[in-house]
Amino acid sequence: MKVSNLPLGPEEARKVAGQLNYRHNGRVTVVVQDSSTGEVLMVASANREAVEKTLTTGMMYYWSTERNRLWQKGETSGHYQFLKELYVDCDFDALLVKVRQIGGACHRGYRTCFYRKLEGATFKEEENLK
Amino acid sequence: MKVSNLPLGPEEARKVAGQLNYRHNGRVTVVVQDSSTGEVLMVASANREAVEKTLTTGMMYYWSTERNRLWQKGETSGHYQFLKELYVDCDFDALLVKVRQIGGACHRGYRTCFYRKLEGATFKEEENLK
Repeated sequence: MKVSNLPLGPEEARKVAGQLNYRHNGRVTVVVQDSSTGEVLMVASANREAVEKTLTTGMMYYWSTERNRLWQKGETSGHYQFLKELYVDCDFDALLVKVRQIGGACHRGYRTCFYRKLEGATFKEEENLK
Repeated sequence: MKVSNLPLGPEEARKVAGQLNYRHNGRVTVVVQDSSTGEVLMVASANREAVEKTLTTGMMYYWSTERNRLWQKGETSGHYQFLKELYVDCDFDALLVKVRQIGGACHRGYRTCFYRKLEGATFKEEENLK
């Protein structure tokens, strides 16, 4: 399997970002997976600008619905994500990115945002993910 | 790691589904991962009814935005998904499910919906996923 040639130049990034379908409020869904362990770290969304910034910098950018602005993962925490591989789904409205995660992906201090597992009828925190 | 005790009874399922935050048009995002390989298969969304049906049957149900109705994965293709583990994220608005996938997850005949990988500035189909 070839390694993606990232980051891209601005023209190439515009071309790639232009192929996506931003039908969900102008955004695509982004599933983030740790490139070395395969662990799913988080899910977020990105508008076209965020996709282009990601492709031209090689670092993950998202659209923050809470703050209503472009958001670089790690910009305040230092927990940056370096893009290693990028996949698009059959509908072109979701991305799967494999990243090298600095620190924990979750702002609560966990390695992954999915740190609560359903055990019986109760969500239990998995302390070993801290 | 304990194995989740699935499926649940209707009361338990209602309780679990009631803890989720359906703030995105009444739905949660669902990331689907193969329980044995860790491969991300697809991303979809589920309303409260779909979550309850999933929990009471042990099989994956989603909300189809195209068909505007509850949808059991595999209902027409036979490519059912059996729920093995379920995680919720820090915001309670996204689920990560680990499933046993029957056949391919993608309606295009691929094992995963994420069968196109960015190589340079081009999305290339990975034929080995068929």
